[in-house]
Amino acid sequence: MELDNPGVRTEVEAAFRRYEDALVSNDVETLDALFHDDWRTIRYGHTENLYGASEIRSFRRNRSPNGLARHLSRTMITTYGNDVATASTLFHRDSAPGKVGRQMQMWVRFPVGWRIVAAHVSLIDG
Amino acid sequence: MELDNPGVRTEVEAAFRRYEDALVSNDVETLDALFHDDWRTIRYGHTENLYGASEIRSFRRNRSPNGLARHLSRTMITTYGNDVATASTLFHRDSAPGKVGRQMQMWVRFPVGWRIVAAHVSLIDG
Repeated sequence: MELDNPGVRTEVEAAFRRYEDALVSNDVETLDALFHDDWRTIRYGHTENLYGASEIRSFRRNRSPNGLARHLSRTMITTYGNDVATASTLFHRDSAPGKVGRQMQMWVRFPVGWRIVAAHVSLIDG
Repeated sequence: MELDNPGVRTEVEAAFRRYEDALVSNDVETLDALFHDDWRTIRYGHTENLYGASEIRSFRRNRSPNGLARHLSRTMITTYGNDVATASTLFHRDSAPGKVGRQMQMWVRFPVGWRIVAAHVSLIDG
């Protein structure tokens, strides 16, 4: 299995950036589109455990659009073969001084494009 | 891409159980062996952000072997193709009443066998 094929990495980096832009602007439609629409898709969030794309969509619709701006650090994207990647990053918000967020995503390439099949977000003392 | 091929699932379920058994018994050698030995392997833990297999190994060696027993709930293993899987589970410890742990792992099949390439563990109010 080839790790970090440059062409595959470029694709995943673009998908990752698209997700990040959608997150900080609360572009719910794009966020929904980037999660794989399947009951097996999972997102563990700051305070919620969401099983299935339907629960994830409901969460997006009820989320406050305020205070989502953040900056990233130590972002690491690694591709495994042609169709799978992990994207892990720390993040920091001015509204949460002294805390560090961690976001980990697993991306899979489907016929419709790259989608997140599992994500886990948490906040700890920095 | 085929999801949840039965034969692949059986393999990953066995690897997942082997990891769980090693975790609760603090079998550091097995835990080390099940994480992909690569600088790109990442583990976000309860209070630490570990980049690379070397940092993960150091953490294991310095971890208290006490209070690791736990029980799992809502465990979901999903395979994507023949060589990749996610394993997500909630966990609960008697020593942390009112809290729920979340563990998410991405597994990849290498020539040596199934290995964890990324993991994220966090604890929130239950």
